[in-house]
Amino acid sequence: MQETRLDTARIRAGRRVIDPIFLDTPLYRCEALEPGLGCEVSIKLETANPIRSFKARGTELVASLLADQGSRAVVCASAGNLGQALAWSGRGRGLDVTVVASRFAPAAKLDRIRALDARLELVDGDFDTARERAAAIARRDGIRLVEDSLDIETCEGAATIGLELVATPPSFDAVLIALGGGAMATGVGHVVKALAPEVEVICVQPLGAPAMTRSWRRRRVVTTDSTDTIADGVAGRRPIPAVLDDLLLVADDAVLVQETSIVAGMRMLLDHAGLVVEPSAALGVAAILEDPDRFAGRHVVTIVCGGNVDVDAYRRWVGATPPDLTTA
Amino acid sequence: MQETRLDTARIRAGRRVIDPIFLDTPLYRCEALEPGLGCEVSIKLETANPIRSFKARGTELVASLLADQGSRAVVCASAGNLGQALAWSGRGRGLDVTVVASRFAPAAKLDRIRALDARLELVDGDFDTARERAAAIARRDGIRLVEDSLDIETCEGAATIGLELVATPPSFDAVLIALGGGAMATGVGHVVKALAPEVEVICVQPLGAPAMTRSWRRRRVVTTDSTDTIADGVAGRRPIPAVLDDLLLVADDAVLVQETSIVAGMRMLLDHAGLVVEPSAALGVAAILEDPDRFAGRHVVTIVCGGNVDVDAYRRWVGATPPDLTTA
Repeated sequence: MQETRLDTARIRAGRRVIDPIFLDTPLYRCEALEPGLGCEVSIKLETANPIRSFKARGTELVASLLADQGSRAVVCASAGNLGQALAWSGRGRGLDVTVVASRFAPAAKLDRIRALDARLELVDGDFDTARERAAAIARRDGIRLVEDSLDIETCEGAATIGLELVATPPSFDAVLIALGGGAMATGVGHVVKALAPEVEVICVQPLGAPAMTRSWRRRRVVTTDSTDTIADGVAGRRPIPAVLDDLLLVADDAVLVQETSIVAGMRMLLDHAGLVVEPSAALGVAAILEDPDRFAGRHVVTIVCGGNVDVDAYRRWVGATPPDLTTA
Repeated sequence: MQETRLDTARIRAGRRVIDPIFLDTPLYRCEALEPGLGCEVSIKLETANPIRSFKARGTELVASLLADQGSRAVVCASAGNLGQALAWSGRGRGLDVTVVASRFAPAAKLDRIRALDARLELVDGDFDTARERAAAIARRDGIRLVEDSLDIETCEGAATIGLELVATPPSFDAVLIALGGGAMATGVGHVVKALAPEVEVICVQPLGAPAMTRSWRRRRVVTTDSTDTIADGVAGRRPIPAVLDDLLLVADDAVLVQETSIVAGMRMLLDHAGLVVEPSAALGVAAILEDPDRFAGRHVVTIVCGGNVDVDAYRRWVGATPPDLTTA
């Protein structure tokens, strides 16, 4: 395999730096989901930790490095989960953490960032606007800017999920990974392709935020003017070239799913797996719902990557059963 | 400490027999719960596994023993979770599993027992009626009867939770344990009192199913004629004398909580921790809600012991906000 920016030995070493509370997360067959999906389904659960997402695997690497270097401050742009993770990792190491987010991000995520003692700055735009503002703060203050998916620690932190997937029998046929900026997809994909290349790596993105998927398909960066999805965690418009290069090496496929499928996936995970997940974490189930023939009879792992939702929005999404939501 | 029926060395050895999928479950601070509860709260999460409860820790010990002995069949009475667990553990070892349950048990639990290939027999009564019927089947067929809480494997399986609690820093001041038949309370209590005796062991039972708590308080078995609680997993009427004897040695307190507090606890765990739990698993939070002064400023672990709920009932419980439910 041509080489990505990631390094498997460094990823293994990273496990020693990450707080164990974020490692070795549950991985289990969920048979109650299977009649509705027509395939064997295993869940890799990244929500049962202090920040309810996988993002701290990466921020633990970043914050540890900064603390070792004697840094005092760090800034990132975030759709909400990276900010919580960096706030958590930074708080434990005495770092001043600034998070820049869209004022349209879920209030639950913003509230948790504040509760973790980070300085939160809101911008009147989307995630890509927040990225620009965070970069400006980093230049002004001369502090480290953490760029999700571009910074290798964010990818290699997420990649530790991949180590756990391939370490544990039984083996599986495909892994479904939410695709946004690409940190999780390139991280997990790198490890899976390095250590279990027969496993299909399938990235899943909302049809309403398709920039990275379109870029992957055309093998060059394609940007979009806007996004329109409830999956706030993966709603970027401007793929990063270096991340796309890596994704081209490790992803077997990238698919787009509809909003109704994401909601149906969230509802299935609630009703049949007892899991409260944010929209991004239902992308894998949505992909199975939209193309059951592809997965029929196979063993599929889906990474449930985050569970930070606004309670009211969540109740609205899973509370009703619109007639246009079908499960096959 | 006077000796219970449990043995710490045997409990440690049991970890090697239990499928790792049920071990080393998440244990984490949940700061989002803390403003509403007024204390530090950590969650020990027993729902992220194939059967969504802690019960397989015990049935793995039972089924392993039976398989070693060349047994072909086993029967148990169950409120729903033990049956799922025994069905799962037995299926993997080629055992014919019969589960006797009340026809009033949650349909979700009964459906899952059937889906796991067990033979399910329903009785027109409650859990204690099911116990009698299971004993009759065992006598008739000459097969092993698994008696929850009485059989040492069920207690020592649950006790492995205790090993995980005391193995992991940071230390805590109290552990809240749902109390029904007593397997989890005596199991976890035994290990905590043996290895971290300064930690307060507090059992929590619904006011509508108070038999074991009343027995613990009077230091003799007290039965009740009926139960009236949504916490189906802990609704027994007839405490087992040997289990009470153990509980008297390891529990520092046993408290009773109201139904409205259980529902408030379920809702808090959903809204602030993103956890779907069955009523029994909300007993710990209910106990904090009813007596916040007792826990103020302390670090409390609550064992979230199961997540098997009927979807419709669950939505009814957590959907509305009755005016009589307060959080302090």
